[in-house]
Amino acid sequence: MWHRDTLTLSARKRGFHLISDEVEQALAEMPPVSVGLLHVQLLHTSASLTLNENADPDVRHDMDAFLRRLVPGNLPYFRHTLEGDDDMPAHVFASLLGTQLTLPVEARRGVNRLALGTWQGIWLGEHRDHGGSRRLCLTLSGE
Amino acid sequence: MWHRDTLTLSARKRGFHLISDEVEQALAEMPPVSVGLLHVQLLHTSASLTLNENADPDVRHDMDAFLRRLVPGNLPYFRHTLEGDDDMPAHVFASLLGTQLTLPVEARRGVNRLALGTWQGIWLGEHRDHGGSRRLCLTLSGE
Amino acid sequence: MWHRDTLTLSARKRGFHLISDEVEQALAEMPPVSVGLLHVQLLHTSASLTLNENADPDVRHDMDAFLRRLVPGNLPYFRHTLEGDDDMPAHVFASLLGTQLTLPVEARRGVNRLALGTWQGIWLGEHRDHGGSRRLCLTLSGE
Repeated sequence: MWHRDTLTLSARKRGFHLISDEVEQALAEMPPVSVGLLHVQLLHTSASLTLNENADPDVRHDMDAFLRRLVPGNLPYFRHTLEGDDDMPAHVFASLLGTQLTLPVEARRGVNRLALGTWQGIWLGEHRDHGGSRRLCLTLSGE
Repeated sequence: MWHRDTLTLSARKRGFHLISDEVEQALAEMPPVSVGLLHVQLLHTSASLTLNENADPDVRHDMDAFLRRLVPGNLPYFRHTLEGDDDMPAHVFASLLGTQLTLPVEARRGVNRLALGTWQGIWLGEHRDHGGSRRLCLTLSGE
Repeated sequence: MWHRDTLTLSARKRGFHLISDEVEQALAEMPPVSVGLLHVQLLHTSASLTLNENADPDVRHDMDAFLRRLVPGNLPYFRHTLEGDDDMPAHVFASLLGTQLTLPVEARRGVNRLALGTWQGIWLGEHRDHGGSRRLCLTLSGE
């Protein structure tokens, strides 16, 4: 069984945001699979997707705080600067964190659910100051 | 063909550990596929999975040594500090390295094997001082 | 439908290189799928694969410039130094960026195409000074 959908996320401010609920809601509307995988592809190059803690929001704050210091926007050797000081760091984060996830799925009572660890959630990393809405390509395969 | 299993890894000390043999042993017990993919999902947010060299253990030492200096545990702007100095760096490494792998599989003489490069092995990154046992969700698909 | 091929890339100099065309050409020669995923596995531990901008080559320059400063080759605590100053950093980049991608595919007019975002391209990160040719294991699944 193969199924593909697009999910559009509303604009978020710069930082990390928990989007598990939005992905699970889209997944729940797809044909149920007893065993399967959901592939999630962010269709952008200045934002990221990663799995990390779904509880304390301070973890998301600290991740962003660390990354901003790791890649400041005004490094003297940066050449790709026309789109602003937040752009080249955003490209670096897109590659360091990645823009895709593949997630275990199993239907319970006929409804698809992510089969992740207790503390795992899906984070959107918005790395632009004004990134706008972001699109995800969702592909479910399974049986 | 779809098959799912859980693999529990015994507790390791902080650092990187080669776990190819344990994953291949679990894979060998699954129904054989001539072409397939094994998805490996670590069900935790303070450890990581990555592919890297399977030979010289110094590579694993150096990776850990580099990362410990990249993200010290006592950064003054960290807010998520209640679980100890090793916790927030562990979350950062989980996102920088990732917690999932998808691996080419092909059966030889009826037994599933990973089809990786000669020097590639699967590393578990244990980023907590006392991380305990770690669980992997294994999903094999193929034909 | 499952299909596997090997793609060999010619030697590139150290840095990031856009290889979308080579991957899409190999994909176009595979049996068409209306919905599917292409898994791309780099079979090496001192190079990387990542999705990032396919337009301005300065983004590739800046990524490489940043990474070279992040992990110099002569860190005093590095033990894995016999293969040269470029080797241990290459292993670090292979894990930070990753060596695998899973990419949405859909056939248009009977020919498989990647279904990525407008600005997304596949980058090969060549992290050795003289890395030689690099091999990719391509696995297409779909219906």
